[in-house]
Amino acid sequence: MKETRHRGTEPLRAGDPPSPTGTLERHRPIGTQRDNGPGPSSDAESPGPPEGNEAEALLRRARAAVDPELRSAIASLPGSMRRIALYHFGWQHADGTPATGNAGKAIRPALVLASAAALGGSGARTAAVRAAAAVELIHNFTLLHDDVMDRDTTRRHRPTAWTVFGDAEAILGGDALQALALRLLAADPHPVSPAAAARLADCVVELCAGQQADTAMEQRGPDEVTLDETLAMAEAKTGALLGCACALGALYTGAAHEDVDALDAFGREAGLAFQLIDDVIGIWGDPRRTGKPAGADLAARKKSLPVVAALASGTPAAAELAELYTRPYEQDKEDLEQTALLVDRAGGRDWAQAQAVDRMARAVSELARAVPEPEAAGGLLALAEFVTRRSA
Amino acid sequence: MKETRHRGTEPLRAGDPPSPTGTLERHRPIGTQRDNGPGPSSDAESPGPPEGNEAEALLRRARAAVDPELRSAIASLPGSMRRIALYHFGWQHADGTPATGNAGKAIRPALVLASAAALGGSGARTAAVRAAAAVELIHNFTLLHDDVMDRDTTRRHRPTAWTVFGDAEAILGGDALQALALRLLAADPHPVSPAAAARLADCVVELCAGQQADTAMEQRGPDEVTLDETLAMAEAKTGALLGCACALGALYTGAAHEDVDALDAFGREAGLAFQLIDDVIGIWGDPRRTGKPAGADLAARKKSLPVVAALASGTPAAAELAELYTRPYEQDKEDLEQTALLVDRAGGRDWAQAQAVDRMARAVSELARAVPEPEAAGGLLALAEFVTRRSA
Repeated sequence: MKETRHRGTEPLRAGDPPSPTGTLERHRPIGTQRDNGPGPSSDAESPGPPEGNEAEALLRRARAAVDPELRSAIASLPGSMRRIALYHFGWQHADGTPATGNAGKAIRPALVLASAAALGGSGARTAAVRAAAAVELIHNFTLLHDDVMDRDTTRRHRPTAWTVFGDAEAILGGDALQALALRLLAADPHPVSPAAAARLADCVVELCAGQQADTAMEQRGPDEVTLDETLAMAEAKTGALLGCACALGALYTGAAHEDVDALDAFGREAGLAFQLIDDVIGIWGDPRRTGKPAGADLAARKKSLPVVAALASGTPAAAELAELYTRPYEQDKEDLEQTALLVDRAGGRDWAQAQAVDRMARAVSELARAVPEPEAAGGLLALAEFVTRRSA
Repeated sequence: MKETRHRGTEPLRAGDPPSPTGTLERHRPIGTQRDNGPGPSSDAESPGPPEGNEAEALLRRARAAVDPELRSAIASLPGSMRRIALYHFGWQHADGTPATGNAGKAIRPALVLASAAALGGSGARTAAVRAAAAVELIHNFTLLHDDVMDRDTTRRHRPTAWTVFGDAEAILGGDALQALALRLLAADPHPVSPAAAARLADCVVELCAGQQADTAMEQRGPDEVTLDETLAMAEAKTGALLGCACALGALYTGAAHEDVDALDAFGREAGLAFQLIDDVIGIWGDPRRTGKPAGADLAARKKSLPVVAALASGTPAAAELAELYTRPYEQDKEDLEQTALLVDRAGGRDWAQAQAVDRMARAVSELARAVPEPEAAGGLLALAEFVTRRSA
């Protein structure tokens, strides 16, 4: 697949089986100790969801909480910009008629709200709704722009905005969404909103640097990309906004600086775990589950994490893989099977899965540092497990 | 020329003769009553510049005040983004070596600072430096993006960033500059900084809508564009940021809401006056002065303000012009001369010049409402005259 998946993929369908990394099993003891009692993290106003569905319930609640903010922010746009935004969020068809759309999974707003709830209870959760909407606007601004740059034609099962309205409209629509996001925080009377805005703006710069690195790395040869820089790129492109979402939620509780940073690290590490699993699926995923052709990343000669790990392994398979990867893909199913086999044989698959487990462990440890009570940490943990719970 | 001139042209060379609109003469009594005494608006730390050079002195001081903020903000960017920004600001060559560049005339920062000084004296001016830098970052973000959309290849006498680094880099560089601008205000401890950030974010949306309208209008036929919408587009694309600059300066003095709005209106009207004169020059300007081929706007079939006014005139010349304008330009000098003549004969030139005078008068009247003391208003007036002082 294309590199947009890094920032752009909406992670996963409900009901996917547990992650092959074992993270779910490994951390379930923490994640299942919640009983939705009236502790600081309990979402007291909703009944406890059935076991395993907590993340989905949090996502639904986040969507319900931020949609009014998002819709009102978008309604404030002039007609031309509003049209693009409403289309991109799936709330209008290209002809301007209403659509019951797919605005995405609301992972990032859910992380903001769960983080606020974990450290400050339901009052902090309510206070952080604008910040959650701002994070979602930033996410969607980057999607609009990345799709233009990457020439991606499909987003959330619909033609991307630039294919419908043109490059200029999609660029301007993205610009306007960034402005709306920072405007939401500027208009937020909460005393931490300037700190939240500064953190979110820093994150935008990091997202841009991540996308820039991705674009630049794809133009280099397979031998010219190191694993460290690929991990750094994935952290900037995927991890940074998940981390920022968690940090913003913590800010709205008045949490100590080190707790805010720990939650940022939690989100970043979970984001990297997600990216690693996503990259594994980009190679070995079942097309019936992913909705994408098998081996699409390999066909695009994408330097995803398992591929770069394989190339860096120094094995004979790595040399073979490098040679294959310098040749453009020629619609050859055997080539794809052979390439996938070489990545596997050079250790790319095992490495990525082990890294994902490791990143998830680091995420959990960062979380435990800031939120030692398992019942308070439960929502965040459930979300982290949700984003990494995929079948390869 | 291309539509980027609307947002993008750096107005004018020093020493251009007074405006043919007569605005300079008309308003000189106010503009010349300053004696740089120790009033609230005097830039007390610098000696009074010679008559007629006040605007240039203000621009130089603004550049000196905001450059450290701009350089420090840009230095905070990751290497990849920093490279684009430094190139765009003229501070580095494409190969990364230092350049003693042309970062533009600093009109917008000068308006922020002059507005703060007019209403609050030199203390307010100092307090508004970050806001001035933020406005300049926003201006440059729009230039980077507009150049990509409009495929403009020259900016400040150098190849545009996208021609050197590619579309993706220029888009991401612009995204990062927008984030930096709003970050500067988020980190500004001044109590009005959230209001300033909200106003600047609103302005970004308006700038985007203006660029969108311009792009869309250029794709329509010459009979399908009204004068009202062309004026509205020019106000959004050019006037909005000049207005916002003045409003931000006023905010930093704790001015009353209506004074902030009056200064916004002052900047908007002056911006429209500038655009009208700029459009006249785009048709009848002397190539030796403008550095652009004669009639470039006509060759591009650009729907500039004088052209749209001519088309809307209902005269026989308008019908002839409409017919000519539907045909693409074919490197025919006579075509250009004939087109310019038709715009003139249909009243487009006179209309634009009268409108410019009218807009400038409105600007002065808005300014007088908020800043009744001529000596306090002098800096802003000098800047407004400077941006509209061009020879057609």
